Amino acid sequence: MTPSSPGTLSRPASPDQLEQYLAHCKEICDGEIDRLYGSGRQGAGSLHELILDYPLRGGKALRPALSIAICLGLGGHLDAVLPTAATLELYHNAFLIHDDIEDESWWRRGKPTLHIDHGIPIAVNVGDAMLSLTLQPLLDNVERVGLGPALRILRAVAHMTRQTVDGQAIELEWVKSNAWQLDDADYLKMVELKTSWYSFITPLQAGALAAGADLSQLPPLEALGRHIGAAFQITDDLLNLRADPEDYGKEIGGDLWEGKRTLMLLHALRCATPEERDHAVEILGRRRPGADGELGLTDLLERLTARGDLSHSGRTEIVTFLAGQHHSESKKLDDIRWLFDLMQRMGSLNHARDLAARHAREAAAVLADLDWLPPSQHRDMLTGLVDYVHGRTR
Amino acid sequence: MTPSSPGTLSRPASPDQLEQYLAHCKEICDGEIDRLYGSGRQGAGSLHELILDYPLRGGKALRPALSIAICLGLGGHLDAVLPTAATLELYHNAFLIHDDIEDESWWRRGKPTLHIDHGIPIAVNVGDAMLSLTLQPLLDNVERVGLGPALRILRAVAHMTRQTVDGQAIELEWVKSNAWQLDDADYLKMVELKTSWYSFITPLQAGALAAGADLSQLPPLEALGRHIGAAFQITDDLLNLRADPEDYGKEIGGDLWEGKRTLMLLHALRCATPEERDHAVEILGRRRPGADGELGLTDLLERLTARGDLSHSGRTEIVTFLAGQHHSESKKLDDIRWLFDLMQRMGSLNHARDLAARHAREAAAVLADLDWLPPSQHRDMLTGLVDYVHGRTR
Repeated sequence: MTPSSPGTLSRPASPDQLEQYLAHCKEICDGEIDRLYGSGRQGAGSLHELILDYPLRGGKALRPALSIAICLGLGGHLDAVLPTAATLELYHNAFLIHDDIEDESWWRRGKPTLHIDHGIPIAVNVGDAMLSLTLQPLLDNVERVGLGPALRILRAVAHMTRQTVDGQAIELEWVKSNAWQLDDADYLKMVELKTSWYSFITPLQAGALAAGADLSQLPPLEALGRHIGAAFQITDDLLNLRADPEDYGKEIGGDLWEGKRTLMLLHALRCATPEERDHAVEILGRRRPGADGELGLTDLLERLTARGDLSHSGRTEIVTFLAGQHHSESKKLDDIRWLFDLMQRMGSLNHARDLAARHAREAAAVLADLDWLPPSQHRDMLTGLVDYVHGRTR
Repeated sequence: MTPSSPGTLSRPASPDQLEQYLAHCKEICDGEIDRLYGSGRQGAGSLHELILDYPLRGGKALRPALSIAICLGLGGHLDAVLPTAATLELYHNAFLIHDDIEDESWWRRGKPTLHIDHGIPIAVNVGDAMLSLTLQPLLDNVERVGLGPALRILRAVAHMTRQTVDGQAIELEWVKSNAWQLDDADYLKMVELKTSWYSFITPLQAGALAAGADLSQLPPLEALGRHIGAAFQITDDLLNLRADPEDYGKEIGGDLWEGKRTLMLLHALRCATPEERDHAVEILGRRRPGADGELGLTDLLERLTARGDLSHSGRTEIVTFLAGQHHSESKKLDDIRWLFDLMQRMGSLNHARDLAARHAREAAAVLADLDWLPPSQHRDMLTGLVDYVHGRTR
């Protein structure tokens, strides 16, 4: 992949071109992750397999693609950016592992989460291992891209990790203090810190720095990454709701089961009547059903009873046994449906779609203003990516 | 604290001098941790309080003292080493938080562990925050001690984190595969990786680098740190056993409750009869009593029944209820006593004391050979510290 001559492609890149570009970035990034963090490392025992677990489950490699596109678009070389791109992708996967523990998520990219598969101790350790191993490739940048760019990339990554941690802290603080009176600005600030820095701003900045960009070029990339990040996260939250409840059972609305503060949910709570708000907050305060399949069993019992395969007294006995295993009431499927219905009645989904579209437009405007990024397939890819990130809801 | 003129103190430093030196290092290190990671940071919400929680619970500040002593002993300045010393201490505390989650420990420095106090999600996040925040002060070393030493310290820290992670992985792998046929060399390798690098080797090396040491001075410091680390960890494991079972109840032998692979336990398993070994492994395979106070309640019930405050049928009812909360048998106090007795009968405690003493002697010999470290109170402190680390058992 080398910079093409300016203007050879229409812009933005078509969905097909974008898919191809992303797939190519994913392939070379996976190879680099394996080289830097995989089985080549000595003495790591079976740890390296667990490190590669999340990266090799798939995913779009959006972050490496951003680093690669901006670096090549600025005339830099793939070799200059690839280890940094792979390292940022590893950070992402380490955060995912620890987020999954913190959010008590069960499912990630079509498989059980790492802590469900291997237990919390192993999952904490694997995430720590990944975070710890990222320092060496970034230090090796000194030989690869020169001292100045290497130090600027290290400083960008140090800043990124602080922002991410602060964002995660805000969200955990909301959970701890049971805070629900939050507006769009609160949500967007949390998303910027928790998601946009490590997913968009730093990959763009690090890619530019690897191509020799100076510090004056970083602020517009921060603005670009912030707007893409907002459009991306709101869209992601909308997608989380979209699955048909009848088809997907507990998979639908994982965010609602978790009680995650999404733009839509916070909007619905602001617009609801005091009675509806109280009821919603009460539901959200209930714990999730246990990972031991409690919900699945409850569903099964409902169905068996409905079709006469289970007597009412038999069902009561089983439910009583289940209740003895837990100390408080859990969320039920009907609760989740009620919350979803509330968001629809309050127009919260449309509100979210509007806001995502606004941020996608802002991102496109910032990108269009980058007069130091010459026309190329890489620039077209970035333009197409803004559409892609936002267009997933349409 | 400045380097005193050579030879003004007898060596090794007396216990009182050592205590004073450690206390002074602790005080200035706490101040530096607060400056770098504490309430001065903006936007961190209540996160900074949790970051300071473990460091401010006390502890000896052994690691910062090692960095400070070697740096000052080589003629370096306190300002040159203090941020690095504080950062290594923060790493240590971050590892403690995540170790406590991984080992399911309940108690740390006289208080409940962070995840018991605040839940696993917060504790994972706080440890990540601490690990993430360490990069910035190490990058700021460029301005403080110059580019060469700063990069050498960063590389030493990168190496340290990899070693620590590999050591932790070995231990978790033993747990996962239920491995118990392990010899002294297996144990010592794990301790070197998991403990000695971040606790002794890297603090010594980073302190020397901050004083301008070159790479040729690092190998003897690695040997010194490895031997101190072995003496320290074996002694620590022995101390964990020493509390009187009658006095301390479940506090005694926390390592035995956890099923931690200690030198003594592995030695006892190697020396025991096949029947004893099978019984020991069976006990070790049982889960710990729950953090919900299961063990404390069992003890209370025993005492109430013994003094006639609880009928036998009442007790049975309560025990039956407790059993319904858990799916498998847990370790009992009698199990722990049996394991302790096995180790005594096999001479495992003496074996451990001998090995700790051997490593302390090796450490003293390496230190005595360091002809590039001139006589000073700082060198005397290091000599005294070897005795101190090992002498805690006597």
